[in-house]
Amino acid sequence: MKRILIINGPNLNLLGRREPGIYGSADMESCLAALRLRYQGSVEISYFQSNHEGAIIDKLHEVGFDTELDGIVLNAGAYTHTSLAIADAIAAIKVAVVEVHISNVHSREEIRHRSMISGVCKGVVAGFGLDSYRLGIEAIAAL
Amino acid sequence: MKRILIINGPNLNLLGRREPGIYGSADMESCLAALRLRYQGSVEISYFQSNHEGAIIDKLHEVGFDTELDGIVLNAGAYTHTSLAIADAIAAIKVAVVEVHISNVHSREEIRHRSMISGVCKGVVAGFGLDSYRLGIEAIAAL
Amino acid sequence: MKRILIINGPNLNLLGRREPGIYGSADMESCLAALRLRYQGSVEISYFQSNHEGAIIDKLHEVGFDTELDGIVLNAGAYTHTSLAIADAIAAIKVAVVEVHISNVHSREEIRHRSMISGVCKGVVAGFGLDSYRLGIEAIAAL
Amino acid sequence: MKRILIINGPNLNLLGRREPGIYGSADMESCLAALRLRYQGSVEISYFQSNHEGAIIDKLHEVGFDTELDGIVLNAGAYTHTSLAIADAIAAIKVAVVEVHISNVHSREEIRHRSMISGVCKGVVAGFGLDSYRLGIEAIAAL
Amino acid sequence: MKRILIINGPNLNLLGRREPGIYGSADMESCLAALRLRYQGSVEISYFQSNHEGAIIDKLHEVGFDTELDGIVLNAGAYTHTSLAIADAIAAIKVAVVEVHISNVHSREEIRHRSMISGVCKGVVAGFGLDSYRLGIEAIAAL
Amino acid sequence: MKRILIINGPNLNLLGRREPGIYGSADMESCLAALRLRYQGSVEISYFQSNHEGAIIDKLHEVGFDTELDGIVLNAGAYTHTSLAIADAIAAIKVAVVEVHISNVHSREEIRHRSMISGVCKGVVAGFGLDSYRLGIEAIAAL
Amino acid sequence: MKRILIINGPNLNLLGRREPGIYGSADMESCLAALRLRYQGSVEISYFQSNHEGAIIDKLHEVGFDTELDGIVLNAGAYTHTSLAIADAIAAIKVAVVEVHISNVHSREEIRHRSMISGVCKGVVAGFGLDSYRLGIEAIAAL
Amino acid sequence: MKRILIINGPNLNLLGRREPGIYGSADMESCLAALRLRYQGSVEISYFQSNHEGAIIDKLHEVGFDTELDGIVLNAGAYTHTSLAIADAIAAIKVAVVEVHISNVHSREEIRHRSMISGVCKGVVAGFGLDSYRLGIEAIAAL
Amino acid sequence: MKRILIINGPNLNLLGRREPGIYGSADMESCLAALRLRYQGSVEISYFQSNHEGAIIDKLHEVGFDTELDGIVLNAGAYTHTSLAIADAIAAIKVAVVEVHISNVHSREEIRHRSMISGVCKGVVAGFGLDSYRLGIEAIAAL
Amino acid sequence: MKRILIINGPNLNLLGRREPGIYGSADMESCLAALRLRYQGSVEISYFQSNHEGAIIDKLHEVGFDTELDGIVLNAGAYTHTSLAIADAIAAIKVAVVEVHISNVHSREEIRHRSMISGVCKGVVAGFGLDSYRLGIEAIAAL
Amino acid sequence: MKRILIINGPNLNLLGRREPGIYGSADMESCLAALRLRYQGSVEISYFQSNHEGAIIDKLHEVGFDTELDGIVLNAGAYTHTSLAIADAIAAIKVAVVEVHISNVHSREEIRHRSMISGVCKGVVAGFGLDSYRLGIEAIAAL
Amino acid sequence: MKRILIINGPNLNLLGRREPGIYGSADMESCLAALRLRYQGSVEISYFQSNHEGAIIDKLHEVGFDTELDGIVLNAGAYTHTSLAIADAIAAIKVAVVEVHISNVHSREEIRHRSMISGVCKGVVAGFGLDSYRLGIEAIAAL
Repeated sequence: MKRILIINGPNLNLLGRREPGIYGSADMESCLAALRLRYQGSVEISYFQSNHEGAIIDKLHEVGFDTELDGIVLNAGAYTHTSLAIADAIAAIKVAVVEVHISNVHSREEIRHRSMISGVCKGVVAGFGLDSYRLGIEAIAAL
Repeated sequence: MKRILIINGPNLNLLGRREPGIYGSADMESCLAALRLRYQGSVEISYFQSNHEGAIIDKLHEVGFDTELDGIVLNAGAYTHTSLAIADAIAAIKVAVVEVHISNVHSREEIRHRSMISGVCKGVVAGFGLDSYRLGIEAIAAL
Repeated sequence: MKRILIINGPNLNLLGRREPGIYGSADMESCLAALRLRYQGSVEISYFQSNHEGAIIDKLHEVGFDTELDGIVLNAGAYTHTSLAIADAIAAIKVAVVEVHISNVHSREEIRHRSMISGVCKGVVAGFGLDSYRLGIEAIAAL
Repeated sequence: MKRILIINGPNLNLLGRREPGIYGSADMESCLAALRLRYQGSVEISYFQSNHEGAIIDKLHEVGFDTELDGIVLNAGAYTHTSLAIADAIAAIKVAVVEVHISNVHSREEIRHRSMISGVCKGVVAGFGLDSYRLGIEAIAAL
Repeated sequence: MKRILIINGPNLNLLGRREPGIYGSADMESCLAALRLRYQGSVEISYFQSNHEGAIIDKLHEVGFDTELDGIVLNAGAYTHTSLAIADAIAAIKVAVVEVHISNVHSREEIRHRSMISGVCKGVVAGFGLDSYRLGIEAIAAL
Repeated sequence: MKRILIINGPNLNLLGRREPGIYGSADMESCLAALRLRYQGSVEISYFQSNHEGAIIDKLHEVGFDTELDGIVLNAGAYTHTSLAIADAIAAIKVAVVEVHISNVHSREEIRHRSMISGVCKGVVAGFGLDSYRLGIEAIAAL
Repeated sequence: MKRILIINGPNLNLLGRREPGIYGSADMESCLAALRLRYQGSVEISYFQSNHEGAIIDKLHEVGFDTELDGIVLNAGAYTHTSLAIADAIAAIKVAVVEVHISNVHSREEIRHRSMISGVCKGVVAGFGLDSYRLGIEAIAAL
Repeated sequence: MKRILIINGPNLNLLGRREPGIYGSADMESCLAALRLRYQGSVEISYFQSNHEGAIIDKLHEVGFDTELDGIVLNAGAYTHTSLAIADAIAAIKVAVVEVHISNVHSREEIRHRSMISGVCKGVVAGFGLDSYRLGIEAIAAL
Repeated sequence: MKRILIINGPNLNLLGRREPGIYGSADMESCLAALRLRYQGSVEISYFQSNHEGAIIDKLHEVGFDTELDGIVLNAGAYTHTSLAIADAIAAIKVAVVEVHISNVHSREEIRHRSMISGVCKGVVAGFGLDSYRLGIEAIAAL
Repeated sequence: MKRILIINGPNLNLLGRREPGIYGSADMESCLAALRLRYQGSVEISYFQSNHEGAIIDKLHEVGFDTELDGIVLNAGAYTHTSLAIADAIAAIKVAVVEVHISNVHSREEIRHRSMISGVCKGVVAGFGLDSYRLGIEAIAAL
Repeated sequence: MKRILIINGPNLNLLGRREPGIYGSADMESCLAALRLRYQGSVEISYFQSNHEGAIIDKLHEVGFDTELDGIVLNAGAYTHTSLAIADAIAAIKVAVVEVHISNVHSREEIRHRSMISGVCKGVVAGFGLDSYRLGIEAIAAL
Repeated sequence: MKRILIINGPNLNLLGRREPGIYGSADMESCLAALRLRYQGSVEISYFQSNHEGAIIDKLHEVGFDTELDGIVLNAGAYTHTSLAIADAIAAIKVAVVEVHISNVHSREEIRHRSMISGVCKGVVAGFGLDSYRLGIEAIAAL
């Protein structure tokens, strides 16, 4: 049994309500339900969302030295592009972090082409809609 | 009767105490009182201030789909220039946001010439001291 | 009775005919008529338009030391982004200048995000369509 | 019968007298004469030159909604590289504009490699000496 | 039964022999064998490698309109960062392309942080060693 | 009788199938047929296309010292913006080269505004659809 | 008796657990204990740590007008390089702030070479491990 | 007897009224009178001022081939930093041009450190107040 | 007996015919003959030239693990400045590569001042005409 | 007993006479006297000043391998921002160097925000007036 | 009687021998002789030349507080573009410094367009050959 | 008999003691002895080293017009990257200068990738350890 935490950053609580052209019309709750169903018995998925940079760092610290956690799937939202502090938190903890994005950030505005956290993550998955979360889980499960 | 929310970002709780050469010596309380008096019976003005980027995003989410709110006057302070997450929140919500600044940000340091949120706001008002808030209200009222 | 001059820069004589998706379909004449009606008895509004950078400078000089003029509402159009000479004229004169834009210049091309004149203007109003002119007048009237 | 207007920008009145190594030794009058002769009966060519950015804009406005004009061949000279206002005028009018240059601007100084108007023109012809004007006419005639 | 083509770009024929600290010591043949075994009966995997930018474009054209191909997993190697021509080929074809990288390109040299092809791909997977290919297949299979 | 070679670079073999919004729906074969018909008896047009940077260079070398060839019309496609090697080949040969583009590269992405080959070509024609090839021929014929 | 507050920013709560190669293996508690012992009777040292940018600003406001506080030793961690809002808070308050860093930020990544807060601090101490805090206290005590 | 023309660009008609901290309190008329007195019998000084870029170009053309004119002292004001068209005019004419500035442009804003015209002028004199004009005359007289 | 391979990149097959002002009038054949004569009995020199980036990579792979080859003298021509893929090939192979240039690339255009391959080569020799090849051989022979 | 050398770079011999608003009115002699008095019996302080970059390098070499010297407090003045040669000297020697500045270089001109030597120094102390030298000594004494 | 010191920087001792196309064929000795003759009885001219940045700073310090010296004419040669230390020396002293250049630095390489010392000099004279020195003297004499 | 001067710049007197990982453990004395032995009877090698930029310029002037000197092998150390004055000296003298570097500067920090002197040298040799000096001599001997 694998244990994985999904962390969602700012504005991702609005999934399903926010710019459906970019983020799709499904919400995170049904996405989580589908993932838990799919990985029933093989991966235990917990979830955390915050719009606060500091709260994401607090959470990374809280779980980051937990030897029973197999990995973190992190969609840091806009903080991906501005938060050196989250990058430092990822570098500081022991648990592997996989960066995911729903949209293809590289086909959007220039500022979203540069990630401050990719370099300290294990790897990156971007552009597959909510399926990016599943791929992140797959990636961690295979580490 | 119009309903408008004023959101003030970091350090704007210090108005009247902070660098009076730039921000003037009046505080926000008297400014709000004057605005409420002026628009008595025509505009109901609520107010929120936080030094926390995340709290501003939370507030934008909380009120941003309220069909009875006519608009938000947002002075994001320094977050204007660094917060892509607040910009994303503005783009995600339905209520129109007008960006205001007390000082003329364009006659200050280079970093204050670039706003990360202007592009997703309805419009911008800057440089008229506390009167910028009134002009922001006027702008929303006329939308 | 306040006295205010509106100066429009290049291509703004085409308002109503030019890219209505960006600038709207109303023309400047009806905008001026509406403003004069609204401020009848309180603000006297004169108007000047030119496609010539030099003519705008000449006009700023001509009226810029007139102690009976309360302010200038200037929409310098494309010269906003290229004319240091107009900026110098604004800095040189005594009458306060408020910069206005019909469109939200910050959601358009990169070159329109940088204003050469904002720093020497009293303040800036942008993005409210033709209502930006009214807000500029309001701003001056309250100085 | 096609109708085409050639507009020449700053310093192009000096053709034949100005830096012959770059611009050749023929003048514009003989160039126009040759073109009119060549296209006698098929294209009527009118001509306008000014060293004033504003006058070029005025002219573009004057003719730009003329449904009997098939196109404008514009050599904006140095304004090609500095005038956002002319670019805005081209975008604002209805008549198609073809940008031409006598010299190969790309083999000259860095600043001449960037055109502010190419993006809003129909197309660009550069580097063929005075023959660039003929190619511009050909291009419009085939639209 | 899904049909997927893996395309590997320059130097990836050296996998197992080339900088094992970055690319690991497994070679592509065993990777392909493992993938074919895993997806036996569900995904048919074909493979193409070339060090020639033009040959990769030729291949993309050849298969890119094949309605029986479900997707392309492309590791363009160094061409990721320099080839606009491959990007144009991806944009031109109909079959979806997923960009993958063995190493975490974002923790390497600056030039590898910018991808010329990400924006026209469906999505990106990077940093999971040879497992990135499997994740790319998973991503396509779920489209 | 003039002799001219048209060279097309990467992805231009897909004309008619590729992004018709940008490149139109006609293919190169019918374009060539039309040109040969038009210039029957006055210009002999040969044609070469490759997706390989090296093959384009080989071809330029092969024909570039042929004193019976009047010129080359080169649409280097994406290599226009990335290939210094093609630029060097053009500079090295004796036959004049005219750069052409179907689309108006200046109204597309930033990277397409910079050409590495314009400076060593005789001149540039861009933005007239397939008619750009005809204008390139016209330009060479008049050299 | 001097009174000094040490403020630590994001991830500094992990001292001793985090990247010991960069930050050493001692934790902040023993550092504080050692400092309090050393300055017993001469300097009273209080301490605050948060991973929240907003909480650091709140704290700066809370103590920043306290005339009995001699100074603040601030290690803003990653916020040093991204937070204009903390810089504004420092500029707004009356108590002097000294910026300190454990590591030599100038021998690390490029982004850590630029501090957004140095310009509004009294001075900077960087690179001496935990001894940087003592030097910060020394600096304030001598103001 | 030498013949010299002084050309003043935008806003220089306001000398004596404009920002005296930068430009001094003397006006151009008294400056010209003093210069004519000083050079009585040796240098004949004519004068032209315009706020119009085009008018300055027209004037340069008008006098620029006059073999009896010994030189032009040009203070192009803000156009110094933005006008490639004036630079082209200077390069096109035969009469030598000396660039002068009243203020030390290099101790002012960044944009004033770059001159578009210096490279095509004979030389530059800057920073000596109105005495810069005299030095420009001296420079031409000694050519 | 040493064994060395000289690889020449794009356009170097034109030596003697191409821009003799930059590259001299001798051709590569006579250069090779002279080198073979000089090093008769001490160094065996083989030679490869291609205009294809991919063919150069193929060749580097083919010989790059040959323990009997003492080194490669590589003049990558224009690919020096644009090919990350060749740089990756050099880093991937075992045989030492010395970068050479006929011309002094640093006294030519800006783009030729930056080499993408120098950092992974053993060393660089540039500017000595065809003698650069001999110096490259000397360098390898002394490793 | 510790032994420390203070090295002062260009213009620091003028302390007390030079821009007192930035550097204070005390001179280096009295500063040294005060330091020697304070550290009497515990630290022996020697001193060297030169306006010559080469002389500073010579001095660093002379003392830099002296195992009885505990450290160097270096205020390289303007060479801090321009001298890679001094940085190389610091990296080459064995004795630890601490960089100090009297003024807060980060609140001055842009060029003073970048230090070429910080990265190779042990640490940095800046902004405390002449007290920066004492803090530098304290830092070395605690190494 | 005025007293003026001319300081020449690196390589200016080679005047007359060095690149005559740029610097002319006259040497400094004859230039000085001519100047002393011309200003006999009105200006006493002393002279100093060094190739050492530090020696120029030493000289500026030595004479820079001499109340009987009316000014310094400084041609800092290449140090103009690289020496912040000389700029600091000029800012530190009391005697006015006028920057001169023999060649028109603005028509030369990019690096010579930026002066590090202009901003702290009284003014600048450039491009008039050796006559620039005379104009510098004239400028100081008129202060 | 050839006559060659080797000039070493700053910190190269420390060869053998300085960062052996980069510069090797041999010193310059034994390198010179070996070179003199090797070229006994064919090349007379003199040597000069200084840490002073000015002294290197003085030396270049002293020998640079000596018609009996065949060339200068210059390792300018860090001045390679910062000294325009040395570049000017090389351009000013008659004797050919070959730039050499012990390390491969292109695989080190960014600032060492740009040479200010390469463009005015005859050619460059870098990366071969002390053997770079021999190659520099070989290059000059073959001029």
